Amino acid sequence: MTTQEQLQRWQELAQQLRVDSIRATTVAGSGHPTSSMSAADLMAVLLSKYLRYDFDNPDNPNNDRLIFSKGHAAPLLYSMYKAAGVITDEELLSLRKLGSRLEGHPTPVLPWVDVATGSLGQGLPIGVGVALAGKYLDQLPYHTWVLLGDSETAEGSVWEAFDHAAHYTLDNLIAIIDVNRLGQRGQTELGWNIQAYANRARAFGWQAIEIDGHNLQEIDQAYSAALSINNRPTVIIARTKKGKGVAALEDLGGWHGKALKPDDEKQAIAELGGERHITIEVDKPEEQSQPLRGSAVAPGGNPQDHAASSAATGNVQPLQLPTYEIGAKVATRRAYGDAIKALGAAQPDVIVLDAEVSNSTYAEDFAEAFPERYFEMYIAEQQMVAAAVGLQVRQYKPFASTFAAFLTRAYDFVRMAAISRANIKLVGSHAGVSIGQDGPSQMALEDLAAFQAVWNSTVLYPSDANQTAKLVEQMSDRDGVVYLRTTRESTPVIYGSNEEFPIGGSKVVRNSERDQATVIAAGITLHEALKAYEQLKNEGFTVRVIDAYSVKPIDMQTLHQAARDTGGNLVVVEDHWFEGGLGAAVLDAFVGTSSIPIYNGPQLQLIKLAVHEMPGSGTPEELLHVAKIDANAIVEAVKSQVRQPAGASV
Amino acid sequence: MTTQEQLQRWQELAQQLRVDSIRATTVAGSGHPTSSMSAADLMAVLLSKYLRYDFDNPDNPNNDRLIFSKGHAAPLLYSMYKAAGVITDEELLSLRKLGSRLEGHPTPVLPWVDVATGSLGQGLPIGVGVALAGKYLDQLPYHTWVLLGDSETAEGSVWEAFDHAAHYTLDNLIAIIDVNRLGQRGQTELGWNIQAYANRARAFGWQAIEIDGHNLQEIDQAYSAALSINNRPTVIIARTKKGKGVAALEDLGGWHGKALKPDDEKQAIAELGGERHITIEVDKPEEQSQPLRGSAVAPGGNPQDHAASSAATGNVQPLQLPTYEIGAKVATRRAYGDAIKALGAAQPDVIVLDAEVSNSTYAEDFAEAFPERYFEMYIAEQQMVAAAVGLQVRQYKPFASTFAAFLTRAYDFVRMAAISRANIKLVGSHAGVSIGQDGPSQMALEDLAAFQAVWNSTVLYPSDANQTAKLVEQMSDRDGVVYLRTTRESTPVIYGSNEEFPIGGSKVVRNSERDQATVIAAGITLHEALKAYEQLKNEGFTVRVIDAYSVKPIDMQTLHQAARDTGGNLVVVEDHWFEGGLGAAVLDAFVGTSSIPIYNGPQLQLIKLAVHEMPGSGTPEELLHVAKIDANAIVEAVKSQVRQPAGASV
Repeated sequence: MTTQEQLQRWQELAQQLRVDSIRATTVAGSGHPTSSMSAADLMAVLLSKYLRYDFDNPDNPNNDRLIFSKGHAAPLLYSMYKAAGVITDEELLSLRKLGSRLEGHPTPVLPWVDVATGSLGQGLPIGVGVALAGKYLDQLPYHTWVLLGDSETAEGSVWEAFDHAAHYTLDNLIAIIDVNRLGQRGQTELGWNIQAYANRARAFGWQAIEIDGHNLQEIDQAYSAALSINNRPTVIIARTKKGKGVAALEDLGGWHGKALKPDDEKQAIAELGGERHITIEVDKPEEQSQPLRGSAVAPGGNPQDHAASSAATGNVQPLQLPTYEIGAKVATRRAYGDAIKALGAAQPDVIVLDAEVSNSTYAEDFAEAFPERYFEMYIAEQQMVAAAVGLQVRQYKPFASTFAAFLTRAYDFVRMAAISRANIKLVGSHAGVSIGQDGPSQMALEDLAAFQAVWNSTVLYPSDANQTAKLVEQMSDRDGVVYLRTTRESTPVIYGSNEEFPIGGSKVVRNSERDQATVIAAGITLHEALKAYEQLKNEGFTVRVIDAYSVKPIDMQTLHQAARDTGGNLVVVEDHWFEGGLGAAVLDAFVGTSSIPIYNGPQLQLIKLAVHEMPGSGTPEELLHVAKIDANAIVEAVKSQVRQPAGASV
Repeated sequence: MTTQEQLQRWQELAQQLRVDSIRATTVAGSGHPTSSMSAADLMAVLLSKYLRYDFDNPDNPNNDRLIFSKGHAAPLLYSMYKAAGVITDEELLSLRKLGSRLEGHPTPVLPWVDVATGSLGQGLPIGVGVALAGKYLDQLPYHTWVLLGDSETAEGSVWEAFDHAAHYTLDNLIAIIDVNRLGQRGQTELGWNIQAYANRARAFGWQAIEIDGHNLQEIDQAYSAALSINNRPTVIIARTKKGKGVAALEDLGGWHGKALKPDDEKQAIAELGGERHITIEVDKPEEQSQPLRGSAVAPGGNPQDHAASSAATGNVQPLQLPTYEIGAKVATRRAYGDAIKALGAAQPDVIVLDAEVSNSTYAEDFAEAFPERYFEMYIAEQQMVAAAVGLQVRQYKPFASTFAAFLTRAYDFVRMAAISRANIKLVGSHAGVSIGQDGPSQMALEDLAAFQAVWNSTVLYPSDANQTAKLVEQMSDRDGVVYLRTTRESTPVIYGSNEEFPIGGSKVVRNSERDQATVIAAGITLHEALKAYEQLKNEGFTVRVIDAYSVKPIDMQTLHQAARDTGGNLVVVEDHWFEGGLGAAVLDAFVGTSSIPIYNGPQLQLIKLAVHEMPGSGTPEELLHVAKIDANAIVEAVKSQVRQPAGASV
């Protein structure tokens, strides 16, 4: 039983959290005090009694994890940090100011924040990733706590998380829904119908506990029940009032995302019993001996069995990348499968996820070799990317694959992953019209644009199997969001297995002393460029061919040299929409920025060959031809720039 | 009761659908016969008895709608078209060939296909949009039937659809889940646990009917029960076998997306009783007098009340766009709200959707004026965009708004909307670092890149309120995916209300005879460019300033003229990541394509000012400055190009 004294202390802390949420937002002049106040009791009990967290060592593997999926309640989170004694009152009042670590929504600029939130419906699926790491990889008893708002349960991604958490029996995951009834613009869809939330959660296989979110005893009991279950995740559905504790705010519309004016603030703080400056000692986790990486059990297996299981236990081998003979026909997606399996043998922290197409992306090779480090995400790309973000919180290196077209499903998660400063690797197969008969719904034609426009991203697009293997190796240690585009079709191996392909580099595949133009290609179109080279050569035209396998960062120096050497005549050819792809990356290499001067060689004469019309079905060759990105189109483009063969121009 | 004769006829038709699915895919050499065969019985009964469809007139407003959410079962759909007598056997066998209307996955290249499918989990949310139109706008008794695969229920978007369909009591929507247990790579997450599907559906408020999907009588009864309910949507959960009817395929792994070899085909067809060429007469809908557009009831209201309700009934007014005085400070999002309300008064087919932020996007102005044409989509951006696609199937003009950053959540739906040749209008507010204190999770910095890389899209980014109003008007009749980016901050009105802003145009806002450079901006940065103009002018530099409000299509001619007039000195400045935004659009205006010759004026000296570092919180002014996209940065960029003032260079 909870003692009266405990309840009293929790109550005091909750009021402090409310007061501080108000104070910080009033000074900032913006923010979400009322959304913080509804969850203050929930968080006061969590911080005081249940959270196991070593604030001095956020990387302690035994730490519980706390994710504010309702990121707009950041003032509450920051007030908890003050209560835990890790930020000062002064820093609390720097909320939302330029240079402050206390941004409008939480980001990992703060050492205790693992992932950025603020795009609703993402915290729970990310929590699934952390809990997967905890249960199956770390095999440590920490818990992952996720605070959700009620409105965000309308996001399908939340139900992907409910589905996957139950499937993987994540009893170490506890979701808390702050059902304060009021969204940004009025009543939420379900209002205070906490029974409806509970029914849905139970149908998805969760333990659901309905409570009054302002009754400290009920909160205490709910947390206790959540910790004692051992076969499924728990959701605590807490009926709360937005703006709780201040009559002028409580359960009233029109107060979402509004700071109080200083006068109203004074009144509100008085009503809440005044300012407090309680500091509490948050319990640290018990030290556990962390199992060796690679000693995990197959998901779905029993973690207790880990000593007896696992192909990978202690079996770390030096990296032996697959190699392919020049001239063999191998799809780069096939090479990805081989390479990721090789990487898995050498690096026990490599984890693979796939969205039920592992037999197409060839992630299945890894899954068969290392079932304990493979997580099937079914057809839920948002959850897949979120899980990758969650896994890297625990320092794993997740590679997540599906058809490149379907990664667009998770674009908001990728955007947020960048804000989380997450290190994740995404692999998209079946890019472009060259997939052929399946038609446009399966063709990624916007992926290069989408992934380039992600902060600090890397975009790779190999043209051959040996190159793919070398790039997959480099992805492993590359920071940020790293995207690899692979090709469905088998293409000839053109590079020896000893060649190097540094990220940021390129390969000049054909060149001579008197190149008249440069053709820049990557992936499938490189092979068209090579065919065009032969045709042009037969007609006396000499062209340079560059393999721009590193789309971002792009090899500016080699492109500039080529422009200088070939009179500014550049032809870029890509299996992608006209906008934002390889051609855009090449163009960007020639502009100035506030820190890079403008290219000053001969005037660019750049032709971009890319997909303009909506494709249908057809053979890969037919579709490349119709889209005018095949060898013929390249030949024509070069000829339109270079009117005469090299011989004639001498 | 179903007669034996009926059952016999349905059985024969089902076998024909199976045989034809096999024949078409074998000739094609690829495709999904087994995924078609599992649903053949379900579709045979639907086509024979329940579907009301006038194949001669696909636009008949009384037609039922049939969406194959499991688009890979396209061979089954096309076999149904053959059975309905609208395609020949010869055309059926053109499946997946270049130029055939029968693409690998269904697209509206066929007149009876309303929307493209093939990215799983989209058909049901689109069906919600069609059903919203049917119940609340058309107020016609047609039904929307959606065939889903079991694997795709892992997509969160499916649960957004379950949620919204129940919320809007869409008793005219019938989902059929073909639970054939086998996904692409093995067993699905839930296998044949149809009880689990039913529990989830019921928890979300649906009538769920569990049946044996190969028992024609059970199918018949289920459809009948679905049609007789009048307060909620129905899902029929059908336990089926993949490859049903052929022992070598039935319920076996390894057969997803594989065509039979000719020899195996022969055997399979024999097992199914041989080829048939049955043609059936599909029942046409009863003719209904279609209610006038604009006579709808408020969603949630009773459709029977429509005669008495509706502010808009018959009240169509000539368009009176809002106007703003030059110098007033008005946010373009505010102008969007005013303009969409004005448009609503003049055009009864304009429908507005918002994802629970209508008080920020100002969609609420429309919602208040025309509640019967406003659909609250709560925080479910995928469902919102899908609903827009569904509404335009019935010729409505949907405008869907949320924070621009959160439209990334629906990027796959936007991609597919383009393949659907859908005419939808998307409005993203709160773009760029200039939103200020809320921080990066709320800042769209990739939206211009993402939306440009959509086939046949239009991308608009107004800088002032009068311009916004004029653009909103043009959006209404513009085909394809049309995106409008609005700004959170209030900015000065700089244009008169009589000025015109054609899509594809631009405005030269400042120019003179001897401009030394051109600054190209849009939206918030145009105001920085104007400040920079003044600063530069004071120092003797003369620059041209172009407002590129139409990012796609961009005004190539005006840009070329400016490059010619100002010695190729261009500075592009945008509140967007460096990649894929306005700067990319400007660069694209200067390249050649297979149909457009290369620009041949003076050499471009282009500086792109865009966001490079991850922003935090701060005031809009601070963040524009830190990102180096403010007036100061523009001044510096111009000076780096144009070393001396115009006077000095004379």
